[in-house]
Amino acid sequence: MSLLVVGSVAFDSVKTPFGEAESVLGGSAAYFSTAASYFTDVRLVAVIGEDFPEEHLDFLKSRGINIEGIERRPGRTFRWKGEYSYQLNEAKTLETELNVFESFHPDLPQSYRDSPVVFLANIDPALQLEVLKQVENPKLVACDTMNFWIEGKLDALIQTLASVDILIINDGEARELAREVNLVKAAKKIMSYGPRILVIKQGEYGALMFKNQTIFSAPAFPLEQVFDPTGAGDSFAGGFMGYLATCDKTNDATIRQAVVYGSTMASFNVEAFSLDRMRALKQEEIKSRFQAFKALTAFENI
Amino acid sequence: MSLLVVGSVAFDSVKTPFGEAESVLGGSAAYFSTAASYFTDVRLVAVIGEDFPEEHLDFLKSRGINIEGIERRPGRTFRWKGEYSYQLNEAKTLETELNVFESFHPDLPQSYRDSPVVFLANIDPALQLEVLKQVENPKLVACDTMNFWIEGKLDALIQTLASVDILIINDGEARELAREVNLVKAAKKIMSYGPRILVIKQGEYGALMFKNQTIFSAPAFPLEQVFDPTGAGDSFAGGFMGYLATCDKTNDATIRQAVVYGSTMASFNVEAFSLDRMRALKQEEIKSRFQAFKALTAFENI
Repeated sequence: MSLLVVGSVAFDSVKTPFGEAESVLGGSAAYFSTAASYFTDVRLVAVIGEDFPEEHLDFLKSRGINIEGIERRPGRTFRWKGEYSYQLNEAKTLETELNVFESFHPDLPQSYRDSPVVFLANIDPALQLEVLKQVENPKLVACDTMNFWIEGKLDALIQTLASVDILIINDGEARELAREVNLVKAAKKIMSYGPRILVIKQGEYGALMFKNQTIFSAPAFPLEQVFDPTGAGDSFAGGFMGYLATCDKTNDATIRQAVVYGSTMASFNVEAFSLDRMRALKQEEIKSRFQAFKALTAFENI
Repeated sequence: MSLLVVGSVAFDSVKTPFGEAESVLGGSAAYFSTAASYFTDVRLVAVIGEDFPEEHLDFLKSRGINIEGIERRPGRTFRWKGEYSYQLNEAKTLETELNVFESFHPDLPQSYRDSPVVFLANIDPALQLEVLKQVENPKLVACDTMNFWIEGKLDALIQTLASVDILIINDGEARELAREVNLVKAAKKIMSYGPRILVIKQGEYGALMFKNQTIFSAPAFPLEQVFDPTGAGDSFAGGFMGYLATCDKTNDATIRQAVVYGSTMASFNVEAFSLDRMRALKQEEIKSRFQAFKALTAFENI
């Protein structure tokens, strides 16, 4: 099934203890759609400025991503600059220039409006809802959010949450959204806002998935080299939603596999700056790492 | 097989956001031996002062633990006082009184010297080696340690590590011991010191086990109520070593199950202050939680 994503396409400048990258391709929707493109056909909605080079669009097209919904507007593209300490667990934002992203109000191309699967990446929750309303009859809708919206646009966010099937956020955001330190309690509270499935990302520790009364836990893949965590969460969401878009049913079995595909795509993404690892990634490598997750977590029951 | 443990038996005073407990039974060897007693017969080596009440010894005996190796000496028992913040992830030590523990030089009872399985809990590494030398021909030896010894007694610790099969430590300690942030690299370096199996505990996130070229990852059990994390690591080690002591072989399959039994015992322990949850714990509950770990982590391979 086709997977629509709305989010940011940006220039990132990132410094980690292992190197730095200047004005490279980034943004939630770029990471998400590239990761998802290994599973299904993706329809991308975003805004770019006059400075955005054709080569990045060519790359997205080379991944089979439909870019009809990328609008080019006068001005500069969204830019983010961040830095990671030696522990690589959290980025320190040094600069954010919203630029053309500031007045982003997407008008979906006609050909996108029948999208059966939708991912609303981390943007203003009012905008998420605005986009969702333009999709005719979606079968499966997921969204992401962040502390900025939890703190500043809680009412709009609660409204968006009432309209989605799945919420994918990190542990700090889950705790803040629920105002509850205990993650199991926080999950219950968040699901009472609407989402029937909740995925809580825990960075280097993996992810927890909550659905009905069950919980599924998947680790992050233990890597000897982590170069740049930027986009790990969006790559996770891309692998997760990309796989679900290929499934007839979103049931316990497929959701668990989707979480592992999410962790798989995130684990590749952090092996290089920007989307560079995904530029060279092969289907066999994805399959092989999925199976490595099985070997990593398997044990005999008693 | 009989499992010998040497470590502390102490009075703990603990404050968490959910309550407090004053001078309750604690200490690494008390937690370890109680958890291990659900699996095998345990021989406990520790020192207590004149103030240690018979009721605590009676409790240990009621768990089938051999306490012949508990020496009562003039003076007061080891005391520890600590506090946890709302996130419950790390204790802030408020007071430590070594008391009789300060001059602890255990002389193993004759009946302990043939112990096939040995756990050297977190004590001075020189003392760990001193105890190990008194065991005739151990089949399987594991130890724990902490930042205090890594910083102050590194040479003695390296010597102890050369004599053990298994090291069980937490992630911060692993990073400090290896002087390496990346856990996979840190694990390789630590195993070059001697242990052929390394278990890295990650608190609320679970544990990683390294053996040869393989890694096994087990989550912590997601609990809605965590009252007191004190002793979680020692209960983990008790479940882990207790189960291994029942196995003919320490191979990949049994080690993975041992990690899950470790996580199982730790997950019970944090549900109440002191060893209170383990006072009431039933074999069926252990079995059922082990199986819940299976449900928590299972997914279909591709």
